[in-house]
Amino acid sequence: MADDLNGQHHDPARRGFASDNYAGVHPEILSALALANGGHVGSYGGDPYTAAAVEVLRGHFGASAEVLFVFNGTGANVVSLQAMTKRWDAVICAESAHINVDECGAAEKIAGLKLLSVSSPDGKLTPALIDVHAWGFGDVHHAQPRVVSITQSTELGTVYTPSEIAAICSHAHSLGMFVHVDGSRIANAAAALGLPLHAFTTDVGVDVLSLGGTKNGLLYGEGIVVLNPDAVSGVEYLRKAGMQLASKMRFVGVQFEVLFGTDLWLRSATHANAMARRLADATRDIAGVQLTREPEANSVYAILPADVTARLQEQVFFYPWDRATGEVRWVCAFDTTEADVDDFADMVRKEMANR
Amino acid sequence: MADDLNGQHHDPARRGFASDNYAGVHPEILSALALANGGHVGSYGGDPYTAAAVEVLRGHFGASAEVLFVFNGTGANVVSLQAMTKRWDAVICAESAHINVDECGAAEKIAGLKLLSVSSPDGKLTPALIDVHAWGFGDVHHAQPRVVSITQSTELGTVYTPSEIAAICSHAHSLGMFVHVDGSRIANAAAALGLPLHAFTTDVGVDVLSLGGTKNGLLYGEGIVVLNPDAVSGVEYLRKAGMQLASKMRFVGVQFEVLFGTDLWLRSATHANAMARRLADATRDIAGVQLTREPEANSVYAILPADVTARLQEQVFFYPWDRATGEVRWVCAFDTTEADVDDFADMVRKEMANR
Amino acid sequence: MADDLNGQHHDPARRGFASDNYAGVHPEILSALALANGGHVGSYGGDPYTAAAVEVLRGHFGASAEVLFVFNGTGANVVSLQAMTKRWDAVICAESAHINVDECGAAEKIAGLKLLSVSSPDGKLTPALIDVHAWGFGDVHHAQPRVVSITQSTELGTVYTPSEIAAICSHAHSLGMFVHVDGSRIANAAAALGLPLHAFTTDVGVDVLSLGGTKNGLLYGEGIVVLNPDAVSGVEYLRKAGMQLASKMRFVGVQFEVLFGTDLWLRSATHANAMARRLADATRDIAGVQLTREPEANSVYAILPADVTARLQEQVFFYPWDRATGEVRWVCAFDTTEADVDDFADMVRKEMANR
Amino acid sequence: MADDLNGQHHDPARRGFASDNYAGVHPEILSALALANGGHVGSYGGDPYTAAAVEVLRGHFGASAEVLFVFNGTGANVVSLQAMTKRWDAVICAESAHINVDECGAAEKIAGLKLLSVSSPDGKLTPALIDVHAWGFGDVHHAQPRVVSITQSTELGTVYTPSEIAAICSHAHSLGMFVHVDGSRIANAAAALGLPLHAFTTDVGVDVLSLGGTKNGLLYGEGIVVLNPDAVSGVEYLRKAGMQLASKMRFVGVQFEVLFGTDLWLRSATHANAMARRLADATRDIAGVQLTREPEANSVYAILPADVTARLQEQVFFYPWDRATGEVRWVCAFDTTEADVDDFADMVRKEMANR
Repeated sequence: MADDLNGQHHDPARRGFASDNYAGVHPEILSALALANGGHVGSYGGDPYTAAAVEVLRGHFGASAEVLFVFNGTGANVVSLQAMTKRWDAVICAESAHINVDECGAAEKIAGLKLLSVSSPDGKLTPALIDVHAWGFGDVHHAQPRVVSITQSTELGTVYTPSEIAAICSHAHSLGMFVHVDGSRIANAAAALGLPLHAFTTDVGVDVLSLGGTKNGLLYGEGIVVLNPDAVSGVEYLRKAGMQLASKMRFVGVQFEVLFGTDLWLRSATHANAMARRLADATRDIAGVQLTREPEANSVYAILPADVTARLQEQVFFYPWDRATGEVRWVCAFDTTEADVDDFADMVRKEMANR
Repeated sequence: MADDLNGQHHDPARRGFASDNYAGVHPEILSALALANGGHVGSYGGDPYTAAAVEVLRGHFGASAEVLFVFNGTGANVVSLQAMTKRWDAVICAESAHINVDECGAAEKIAGLKLLSVSSPDGKLTPALIDVHAWGFGDVHHAQPRVVSITQSTELGTVYTPSEIAAICSHAHSLGMFVHVDGSRIANAAAALGLPLHAFTTDVGVDVLSLGGTKNGLLYGEGIVVLNPDAVSGVEYLRKAGMQLASKMRFVGVQFEVLFGTDLWLRSATHANAMARRLADATRDIAGVQLTREPEANSVYAILPADVTARLQEQVFFYPWDRATGEVRWVCAFDTTEADVDDFADMVRKEMANR
Repeated sequence: MADDLNGQHHDPARRGFASDNYAGVHPEILSALALANGGHVGSYGGDPYTAAAVEVLRGHFGASAEVLFVFNGTGANVVSLQAMTKRWDAVICAESAHINVDECGAAEKIAGLKLLSVSSPDGKLTPALIDVHAWGFGDVHHAQPRVVSITQSTELGTVYTPSEIAAICSHAHSLGMFVHVDGSRIANAAAALGLPLHAFTTDVGVDVLSLGGTKNGLLYGEGIVVLNPDAVSGVEYLRKAGMQLASKMRFVGVQFEVLFGTDLWLRSATHANAMARRLADATRDIAGVQLTREPEANSVYAILPADVTARLQEQVFFYPWDRATGEVRWVCAFDTTEADVDDFADMVRKEMANR
Repeated sequence: MADDLNGQHHDPARRGFASDNYAGVHPEILSALALANGGHVGSYGGDPYTAAAVEVLRGHFGASAEVLFVFNGTGANVVSLQAMTKRWDAVICAESAHINVDECGAAEKIAGLKLLSVSSPDGKLTPALIDVHAWGFGDVHHAQPRVVSITQSTELGTVYTPSEIAAICSHAHSLGMFVHVDGSRIANAAAALGLPLHAFTTDVGVDVLSLGGTKNGLLYGEGIVVLNPDAVSGVEYLRKAGMQLASKMRFVGVQFEVLFGTDLWLRSATHANAMARRLADATRDIAGVQLTREPEANSVYAILPADVTARLQEQVFFYPWDRATGEVRWVCAFDTTEADVDDFADMVRKEMANR
């Protein structure tokens, strides 16, 4: 491998639409790592960069927010849900929720939680959908519904309005339940809504937030933001026992400090959203391509003929979403360019014309 | 925080002896991150840097080694142990093992494993110590001993010889058990032994290794190295369900590629070990300081008067090891300098003299 | 309490339609306990009554069946499912399955399993319904579907035909999955089908069966019947670690020996089924009462006006089934009499007329 | 098997010294089952026998005691310990504790608890032995010691005095820990002490008790007695999710009502203890037999030559205790007779003489 070490193993000019985690690290984040390097500082979070990042996030979410950093989104979700529940509790979520379909059953396996999922065409829950599962309170035969977990922006690229989240929180709280938000793409939601982060979290009653970083340009690192301390217990122990406590935490801290201490978080998310809209606009009129829903955040969903999908995938990374219908997902990232979008739309147009 | 962003929140010239995870990232590693950046590559390990790192490690451990990267050492240990066990199994380890005392019960909580610990003054197991717990095979009332887990170098700074590990592996295998090595400081052991990594792992019968990176100068990232594929089941699923699968894996891969694809791993460990020996040599003759064992790797253990410890800790980071005896631990890292050691030894001498 | 000890605290002539576990013990079973009493025999199953019961059940299920007795149905289900799965697996079941709604999340909490439930109006799965969740094989992000669990007779009082189960087994096996049957009321299914137990279990490909005893007149005790030894691993350890291994097992054994070594199992189930049909026939023509499905086993489901339900419940035990629709469930047991049924039907008729 | 059904498969006159769970059911208990039979009553504990048993036990333990019945001792222990702990907690116990060596790792596997065991020659903990593990409070790297679990009478046949238990409770409480008593043989302890049950539980600060029934003549059934409601959370849910909630609970209830509502519990235990003392007295002077400790409850421990043990075991059931030393255990039960003891002592004398 020695000769490779002076070079790269990949083409840094190649980008696709597979996922925002196919993208690398934003250069401003990469530079920040060096700032935090050198010398010795306390490990496991006892360092000034972690403290600074917590302060920065309190600026966004309120002075009483408690923030703990973890390695990844599954970690943020599973530690949060454990901290919000007793051993016999259950979590209500959409069938399409990442915790339900993309985390290898971590919530069940690690936390012992029952997930009560409900079908939702736009990936969003409502009080009525919550009520499908919000029953059996006090019945020992029934895992106790304790948390409603929603995703903002959703796995289907939709965005909850503040009032929709307020209604969910109000309903959940009236039933003695808490609300968790999987915010792995919460920056995209904020950009879409044109609102500060607290406006659709702290201000409307959310109890705990998994705060995304990686999909918005970090190397690694997510946050657990506790907005309601009464909603959690032992989150620090659960982070450690959950194998999510980084020893050299200063490097997680400095990334969050830069991401949320400047406008980088919003700049990147706004750009990714704009690229998704551009892609939707550029493809919606191609005969045979059907957008399945309007992009509200940074992903576009479309139904294409299978042979076209196959030929496109030979040229550009992207994933099928629903093999039954032929729906595919195209995700834009902080580094997606207008040319990437336009070239891809041309490619779609060409492949559709070539059938 | 804005004005801080152009500056550092810590003194990069300050170093101590608290832990090798108080140190930052080796500059060669930090530079390598940029190499892997830019463009889009497959996530979750489907990238060329991860592939390259696996190849590099096969060069060290043998062509049939399987390598999976995880976030941290607790993750490497707990995923490994789960992959090596059934739901009703137990793990034999030393009482001082990191898995037993420093991971918040993760092995029990996440994997449901019973840890059968045995006291060992030098932190090392032997066939005879294993036999304290290696019984009850086939008895359904007894959690089944399935894995012997040893640490190399140990939590007490000692190093197993290849023949000691061979004896453990041979004994364990004769009983139908597997051997796991917690190698969070395995580079220090290799440096101490003057042997290639395979000489005291693959060659002597070790089944699975937790391969340390973070304590040897990485930003984050550890490896699970499966030397005996028959010893594990489902390690890829367990990594994901265990919240240890990084999405932007290329950045873990490139760190390991550089660390183990050059002599950096050995250079750093050799240096840290040398600094520990220098510190032992510089303090062993100070009246009132008692070295509790000779440093074989990168840490020094000594008994000091409590008041001296307290005054030293006001000036330099380090941790007490055993409050009952007054034993303390001093750990050297890749960036510990000769001056750091000499200055600290002077400080110890001075504080002892001032009593 | 002393004066009570010579008397009873309940009215042994009072019966209702709440559940077959509101009934007591069949007198032939109670007598059998004395047979097994006296003297010392091996505990934890090392006794001749347990051995005899296993032989009796091999007569029903085939000579290679392995049988382990447990305390209750939840225990039989959860131990079975654990024995059939790895730590990262999932189980496909009907939304109405007892394991999904009535076991307080034991499958998730104890076994760490993800339950993938699918809506089914008659409580029965089909290959097509299984396919709703039978995907993602080999994808580490997805809990791996490993077991299809069906209930026979179902929680909705319906009964699978042998060919329906054969189709499920064939489909599951073709996908590398196993089939578990929750047979807490399997005797009622056999009685309904007029077939021996093996005809719709062993003969059609079922891998593991939870064999009901308690609801068919035992004091306590259920069986795990392993029909395909390749489908399980460690079931004896999982029974013990799952807190389901009775010390004085002889008394479980003798109950099963008598229940299945005579025609008692079938006699009781046939009777209970007949009483359910009698109740359906006696109430189906009452104006305002709507039977929601024909009883195939020992329970009847009907929609009644809420006020009528309330007045009936003041007089006779039974449970609501679906509060949204006003559906109720009436269960018949081995000791339900024709007079019980006729009196209750009269009561329903009278309360409906009194509106 | 048909011809066997009218007969017995065992010799009701044969008894040994293997375990108190080799014995059957006390005749007064067996008779009581019929009392509770017939008719329909509420399941899962909603019956008058369970209510009566709870009242009877409140008479023993105090009016505010909460009592829940479970199937077996492992269930009582594991449900209790879960109810007393958070997910990240640990339990301090003696190395010889049943929860540590005889429950197949259920505490770790089901409850995710770390057991911190400490060696104790007489099976008893003390404040000093507790302190071996009672540290690390507030350190997230350390599973948090939350419960001290002691066994009364112990697995080594010794009995704690009330003041010994008071000292343990006082020490544990001062550290923010709770005290659990595994009382599977608590009746033998009461008989040995000549004290009411509350005198060494409720009165001295015990928080939760696993109340034994099976080893003292029940068919099956143990109790969880919550003496300090602040020490537990969700015990009813944990019982159900832990597969320990009997549907036909009335039969557990009536057994406990009779056992503890009369003097049967004490009569049986006093007798078993007396038989153990008789056996010790009859064997202590046999040359070559060494009693390893004086029997305080119902078991005798002795060291015998291996060949003698082997020849004795061909004739009478009993178990080795420590193969290394040749120690064996002889347990007396409610039905052990003076002749059983005298005959066995003669047999020992004879086999020793025959060497």
